[in-house]
Amino acid sequence: MSAKNERGRRLTIPVVVEFEDVDAYGIAHHTKLVAYLERARARFLLSLGVDLARTDLHLVLYDLAVRFKRTAALLDALEVTVSVSSVDAVRLDLSYAIRKEGLLVARATTALAFVDGATKAVVPIPEDVRRALE
Amino acid sequence: MSAKNERGRRLTIPVVVEFEDVDAYGIAHHTKLVAYLERARARFLLSLGVDLARTDLHLVLYDLAVRFKRTAALLDALEVTVSVSSVDAVRLDLSYAIRKEGLLVARATTALAFVDGATKAVVPIPEDVRRALE
Amino acid sequence: MSAKNERGRRLTIPVVVEFEDVDAYGIAHHTKLVAYLERARARFLLSLGVDLARTDLHLVLYDLAVRFKRTAALLDALEVTVSVSSVDAVRLDLSYAIRKEGLLVARATTALAFVDGATKAVVPIPEDVRRALE
Amino acid sequence: MSAKNERGRRLTIPVVVEFEDVDAYGIAHHTKLVAYLERARARFLLSLGVDLARTDLHLVLYDLAVRFKRTAALLDALEVTVSVSSVDAVRLDLSYAIRKEGLLVARATTALAFVDGATKAVVPIPEDVRRALE
Repeated sequence: MSAKNERGRRLTIPVVVEFEDVDAYGIAHHTKLVAYLERARARFLLSLGVDLARTDLHLVLYDLAVRFKRTAALLDALEVTVSVSSVDAVRLDLSYAIRKEGLLVARATTALAFVDGATKAVVPIPEDVRRALE
Repeated sequence: MSAKNERGRRLTIPVVVEFEDVDAYGIAHHTKLVAYLERARARFLLSLGVDLARTDLHLVLYDLAVRFKRTAALLDALEVTVSVSSVDAVRLDLSYAIRKEGLLVARATTALAFVDGATKAVVPIPEDVRRALE
Repeated sequence: MSAKNERGRRLTIPVVVEFEDVDAYGIAHHTKLVAYLERARARFLLSLGVDLARTDLHLVLYDLAVRFKRTAALLDALEVTVSVSSVDAVRLDLSYAIRKEGLLVARATTALAFVDGATKAVVPIPEDVRRALE
Repeated sequence: MSAKNERGRRLTIPVVVEFEDVDAYGIAHHTKLVAYLERARARFLLSLGVDLARTDLHLVLYDLAVRFKRTAALLDALEVTVSVSSVDAVRLDLSYAIRKEGLLVARATTALAFVDGATKAVVPIPEDVRRALE
């Protein structure tokens, strides 16, 4: 894969831990932290012109890795940062950090592909998106 | 880490994809597949005598990796298998496979530690649990 | 509304409270109990020939009432029963009971309508569904 | 129940519909709208000195009614308003409206009680909270 490194493309969003996100241990459940990543990703891609609501072109996750460093509690104010790690013709790798008062709550990476909504086949990343990412 | 390999310890549970799990693309959302892993894990650990409902001893996830292979749709009948990859004094590594009609939907690994519910400090894996795992 | 009373149409499904469903109070979060109602509803409607996965005909909830009687805890085995209260040309009223070892956890009612997936306009309940419900 | 009417106590919060909230019909799933109510409630109660993170005093929902008027879609910016309907020694009734660009998405009411975290028995609403509500 001849991925190109990306410099400077990033976005940070605020997320507050809601009661619905807290588990029996009194901390944000890990699946919710994974969902927070997607919230940053959705806004980041939207800023690049990718509309997640389109039903003819799906953005599909096929690889996810998360390292949890600290717990987050009810009403904690988090910051979720997403940045481009690499992009090639068909694959977009993003990196994430979730922070609470500057301290790392989690680090994560995802690999994404664009899929035709009807055929479910992987398609090349749209040219304009790829250009915006590089 | 002087982990020991584990042979034979595994558990498979059935999971059905519910409407609440399906996203705008008509497939099980990735956070729900991650939750399905936990359902298998909870029952597996319960079978080893670990009660997740205890508030004094928390089982905390600190590493998660998932590779998504196929999508799952509404009311798909899945099988989630969990098995022990390794266990040492403080760390339990589990592996997972989610299958639909025998075909892989996802593979995953997690790293878990036991944490004191009050101090939030990592504690050794209880001796009886470790023995059951080895 | 000239609704007809329904006698005998009902379905009961088992639901287990998962760790992902439990909140900071150690009980099944109320939104999850609401989702359990939908699980019973989905299967009930499927048994009547209504496919919730269709994108051209949506089944939309427009009224929901729940009375919570008892809490449910991690791995509690629940039974969710759905039955028809009334049905007319455009409205389907269902009633629900969630029970744990025979004791009521919650009672609920919903009002549903069928909506054209494209125009979002309410459409008459399909004749075969209505006949199956009456 | 000698409830007192409440005038003027209300709070409005913004909520954005996330991808994780959208169902197979492309709209915010009804259970998520119910969760949005709780987000407003949590902040409203916090503003009155009620800490939902306390494990010794739980705020328990025992009645919920929602009327859904309009659907909400991905990234819709909603406003959720909560206000006091009535309060007496042991019961707090709240009313809610969810709006999108001024138009009603849903109206709801809840009945809440305070419960001793250990005994699970209903306890009187703490005097300072009740005074703040009246």
